[in-house]
Amino acid sequence: MIRVGVVGYGYWGPNLARAVSETDNLELRMIADLSSDALQRARRRHPSARLTANWRELIADTAVDAVVVATPVGTHFEIARAALSAGKHVLVEKPMTDSVTTSAILVSEAAQRSLVLMVDHTFVYTGAVRAIADLIDSGAAGDIYYYDSTRVNLGLFQRDVSVIWDLAVHDFGIMDHLLKARPVAISASGACFVPNSLENMAHLSVFFDDGAMAHLNVNWLAPVKVRQTLIGGSRRMIIYDDMQTSEKVKVYDRGVSPKDVQLPSYEHLVSYRIGDMSAPAISSKEALLTELEEFARCIEAGATPVTDGACGLRVVEMLSTATRSMALRGQPVELSMERLAS
Amino acid sequence: MIRVGVVGYGYWGPNLARAVSETDNLELRMIADLSSDALQRARRRHPSARLTANWRELIADTAVDAVVVATPVGTHFEIARAALSAGKHVLVEKPMTDSVTTSAILVSEAAQRSLVLMVDHTFVYTGAVRAIADLIDSGAAGDIYYYDSTRVNLGLFQRDVSVIWDLAVHDFGIMDHLLKARPVAISASGACFVPNSLENMAHLSVFFDDGAMAHLNVNWLAPVKVRQTLIGGSRRMIIYDDMQTSEKVKVYDRGVSPKDVQLPSYEHLVSYRIGDMSAPAISSKEALLTELEEFARCIEAGATPVTDGACGLRVVEMLSTATRSMALRGQPVELSMERLAS
Amino acid sequence: MIRVGVVGYGYWGPNLARAVSETDNLELRMIADLSSDALQRARRRHPSARLTANWRELIADTAVDAVVVATPVGTHFEIARAALSAGKHVLVEKPMTDSVTTSAILVSEAAQRSLVLMVDHTFVYTGAVRAIADLIDSGAAGDIYYYDSTRVNLGLFQRDVSVIWDLAVHDFGIMDHLLKARPVAISASGACFVPNSLENMAHLSVFFDDGAMAHLNVNWLAPVKVRQTLIGGSRRMIIYDDMQTSEKVKVYDRGVSPKDVQLPSYEHLVSYRIGDMSAPAISSKEALLTELEEFARCIEAGATPVTDGACGLRVVEMLSTATRSMALRGQPVELSMERLAS
Amino acid sequence: MIRVGVVGYGYWGPNLARAVSETDNLELRMIADLSSDALQRARRRHPSARLTANWRELIADTAVDAVVVATPVGTHFEIARAALSAGKHVLVEKPMTDSVTTSAILVSEAAQRSLVLMVDHTFVYTGAVRAIADLIDSGAAGDIYYYDSTRVNLGLFQRDVSVIWDLAVHDFGIMDHLLKARPVAISASGACFVPNSLENMAHLSVFFDDGAMAHLNVNWLAPVKVRQTLIGGSRRMIIYDDMQTSEKVKVYDRGVSPKDVQLPSYEHLVSYRIGDMSAPAISSKEALLTELEEFARCIEAGATPVTDGACGLRVVEMLSTATRSMALRGQPVELSMERLAS
Repeated sequence: MIRVGVVGYGYWGPNLARAVSETDNLELRMIADLSSDALQRARRRHPSARLTANWRELIADTAVDAVVVATPVGTHFEIARAALSAGKHVLVEKPMTDSVTTSAILVSEAAQRSLVLMVDHTFVYTGAVRAIADLIDSGAAGDIYYYDSTRVNLGLFQRDVSVIWDLAVHDFGIMDHLLKARPVAISASGACFVPNSLENMAHLSVFFDDGAMAHLNVNWLAPVKVRQTLIGGSRRMIIYDDMQTSEKVKVYDRGVSPKDVQLPSYEHLVSYRIGDMSAPAISSKEALLTELEEFARCIEAGATPVTDGACGLRVVEMLSTATRSMALRGQPVELSMERLAS
Repeated sequence: MIRVGVVGYGYWGPNLARAVSETDNLELRMIADLSSDALQRARRRHPSARLTANWRELIADTAVDAVVVATPVGTHFEIARAALSAGKHVLVEKPMTDSVTTSAILVSEAAQRSLVLMVDHTFVYTGAVRAIADLIDSGAAGDIYYYDSTRVNLGLFQRDVSVIWDLAVHDFGIMDHLLKARPVAISASGACFVPNSLENMAHLSVFFDDGAMAHLNVNWLAPVKVRQTLIGGSRRMIIYDDMQTSEKVKVYDRGVSPKDVQLPSYEHLVSYRIGDMSAPAISSKEALLTELEEFARCIEAGATPVTDGACGLRVVEMLSTATRSMALRGQPVELSMERLAS
Repeated sequence: MIRVGVVGYGYWGPNLARAVSETDNLELRMIADLSSDALQRARRRHPSARLTANWRELIADTAVDAVVVATPVGTHFEIARAALSAGKHVLVEKPMTDSVTTSAILVSEAAQRSLVLMVDHTFVYTGAVRAIADLIDSGAAGDIYYYDSTRVNLGLFQRDVSVIWDLAVHDFGIMDHLLKARPVAISASGACFVPNSLENMAHLSVFFDDGAMAHLNVNWLAPVKVRQTLIGGSRRMIIYDDMQTSEKVKVYDRGVSPKDVQLPSYEHLVSYRIGDMSAPAISSKEALLTELEEFARCIEAGATPVTDGACGLRVVEMLSTATRSMALRGQPVELSMERLAS
Repeated sequence: MIRVGVVGYGYWGPNLARAVSETDNLELRMIADLSSDALQRARRRHPSARLTANWRELIADTAVDAVVVATPVGTHFEIARAALSAGKHVLVEKPMTDSVTTSAILVSEAAQRSLVLMVDHTFVYTGAVRAIADLIDSGAAGDIYYYDSTRVNLGLFQRDVSVIWDLAVHDFGIMDHLLKARPVAISASGACFVPNSLENMAHLSVFFDDGAMAHLNVNWLAPVKVRQTLIGGSRRMIIYDDMQTSEKVKVYDRGVSPKDVQLPSYEHLVSYRIGDMSAPAISSKEALLTELEEFARCIEAGATPVTDGACGLRVVEMLSTATRSMALRGQPVELSMERLAS
């Protein structure tokens, strides 16, 4: 049984704590939060867990084997590093940290100590993304031309981070998982319509080394919630609509082929393929449970998680690069770092 | 009765010819097209119109008062200029021409001869866009923060122009009509997934002088047809979905206000307003008929059309600027020209 | 070339006339309508057709081989019978006539004279219904358990017939085409919310000899237009939504199987199968053109149309039976007549 | 503090127990269930509640003031009656009992002892139904012509009751709350497609004393989940779609008026009103919490709940009447009992 401590019991922490408590081989041993209100809520839900207002105490506890970090992003690095130093396996809420440097340090520390470092890119563990990954990995979708995502809603405005770090992080995590091509540059533009806050609307274009392109539309100031992604492949095109209660993933046998003959003017350049659409049955298992089983499995087997620290680092690099481009009103910025081997 | 000649009877010309024939005060007198097939189709539909394979003949005909140009964009300038020189009023299919210089010449020629020069930005004349214009002009929507449009489908791939000139032109026409702010720069990125063709996918960010922002997502290689625009205002937010058969325009009484008190950490920066949604009843009158009535009205009254040549020029300027930025992979390009007074 | 006369140029007649004129082997020779306005509209669209205010003249004309009847339903019988007596092939708008007796006479007359008698059940010729027929005929859908249709909108209120004769007729035509089982009884209930008019809302349950059931919900007083049919089969379930611009037909690999073991209480009786959904690509060819090609083919080959007079009679029998049950507030009424062999 | 015991911790009981524990003035004191698995789940969630396998023990306990009954419907009467006899207030899951007689006895017992008897018609307490009630009660919707509901999905097949008692009960509860008119007769037809089970598909028409009509389409064997109700009023029409995450209630300013002039044939009988649509902002408070606050309030104030025993009885009467009609294949059955005063 792996004994787990959860640091941070605010917005997302309670979900992680519950998922830990529902996962075989994991035991929720301890919860830390600065707020006494939060600790009181934790006591009601998890009466057998030890509580503390001091996360250092949780990390120091020898009865804790693994630490889940669900605090504001600005504190991830300090807490995760301390946990690794104390020999604990670590699962960090996304984004892993708020800078490339700190993320790289975590990856390096975990490697040196042979500890599991995992980042909570939850969507990667959903039935929908796994179904899409199958379509791409099997070759059914063909070469991927583009990934085009709209992720907008009203709120929740955040104090310390722009909408990129809050919403685009989901798509970067999904793209990192799905796409084989290497992103080489990002052009981002954004705007802020609320005084004294960071950008609450942004558009990001990501250029890949094979000519593919991704685009993200993220916005905290939209009237309705939209979570829709179009993925264009040479053999299949996919629509992933996370707001649907059924048929979240639709696969279209549609596309174009260049015509090889010389054409008179007015004629189309391409021929169109318009075949059937299908929507695969998708596992409704909660993503967080799949994710925590992966965490447990990797700790027990000494394996590398699907969303390991290297993956968290790549996503943070993309977030940083996009932020830099946004400050330059869309001027493309290269992803200069060598991508770490996954 | 204003006697009209239509040059070009390919894809869009038949619609314009039919609309001319159904408009009071307009008479469809003549049709020109290079293709004998096209002329045969024209004869069946409009047995009383004179036909010619030579557009110069149509323009020279003294029985023609006004010319509608519906040919490929590369030929618009030559034909429209000849028509103006011959003293005819002109309605040009969008985009008005393929360069800022030629568009500016047309505007100047029409002004010198006191002829009506109108551009066929059809969407401006739809019930939906007119309802949105009412919401903005009346102040009901408040300050406009953003215009965010998705206009994608499978095909029709074009030979001579990128997807920007084919699809973004619609949004530029609508934006020019709806928004009071002046666009100052554009950042665009695009990609081409079919050999030997121009960009078939593009994302454009437009920056305005008042801090507002527009974004267009245009794509010829999407599995489904999407025509959806979000317009965010300080008082109302609007969703315009042209694929809906009813409720094309939805108006949301939603938004945020900055909180003026000092907030403890974890608290939201803003307060949210989530009120009712309403969908105004929208005129189902065909836009093209409204547009041609406007053309007739302006010729008779010597008035300036809602979508006049200056408007056509501003849209061409935006298309050219976006194309330049796209070649620079998103580097923002200023709209340097002085905007013509409308 | 089969020379066709169209009687009735009101609401639906112009569509039939146009379709005749666009069909190979059919020639639109003559149009009859009582209204001079209608004849004027006919002249503009079909300048080469002969026009008359007297349908008897059209029927008597030896230059007419086949007659299309698109007049109010109360006049179908007289006109169609006269046309058959004059040796013309006949296509009648649905419903074929307003009573079982008159429909049976038409069927008999056509048979005696070896003339084609066809009824305009247009939906049968749509790509969507043909795709569904393929699913059922091939056995892919399994045994059909139910057909459940909602066909509601605002208006068009009719003077002489209830909503059953206006809207349910479509479903009866589709059901007659798709389902192999024999309907044995109908229970219908309706209501009228506008003074001095017939029922504008009705619900019909149809019982079949194999235990299957159909239900129709028809309503002229609904806020939105709905055209949705669920078809439940033992192997596949189908949703046919005619208001969708794409994916009109969705096929679900879903169902239940009874469990064969003895179950403790609280346990489910059945096991569920929840597989993929698929939406077949559907021909977008206009149904009316397919239908008129069938009319021409049957006249030339002496063949029996897919929607022949016997089919029209069966549908009229269902309409009459439903009307009788509605007067009895839902009391089931048997379809007593022997079904004519198809 | 009102001390509550919950009998039945199977499918719905856990939700009621949780809601009790989250409601001010209610205290979850005791839980009874025959299954030791259920009791173990109860222990984990509610460690401070007393547990028992014997519901009689719960009812006998003097530390329990009120009893919530969430057992299979066949046992409701015995448990609820025993609870009332022991002087406890009672909230019963819907339907209240499985027969009119037993429901009437419960109503009578509660009245004699001045105890609160409430039935768990949960939907009545949703924000959506409350918004619709406002529209009707205020007169904004005008006279109600019809209530037309589709409530279908795949499963959950039940052992002891037909789909009417499982799904139509929801609509009967909502109708009883919304509509002022008195139902006078029901025509129902159903079918069963799984061996050895009760009807899994049914259509019900309800006739009201003022000419209004209701129709329910309930089905356990549909490929998708639909929860959609159309309500037609003389001034407004309403669509209530419970599967929408936003805009569950849409209000249409649409309708018809009879024309008062004599009309030539072919003309419409009515004039159409097609105005705006609006979707009111709806409270997202959980219905169960609102319901349990109502339970607490009525116990404390000696008040009559919105969904009292009389309401539960009326709904059971409709369920019984519909079941009888279904056995007669749609023959209408009168609701003969005098309606109890509400």
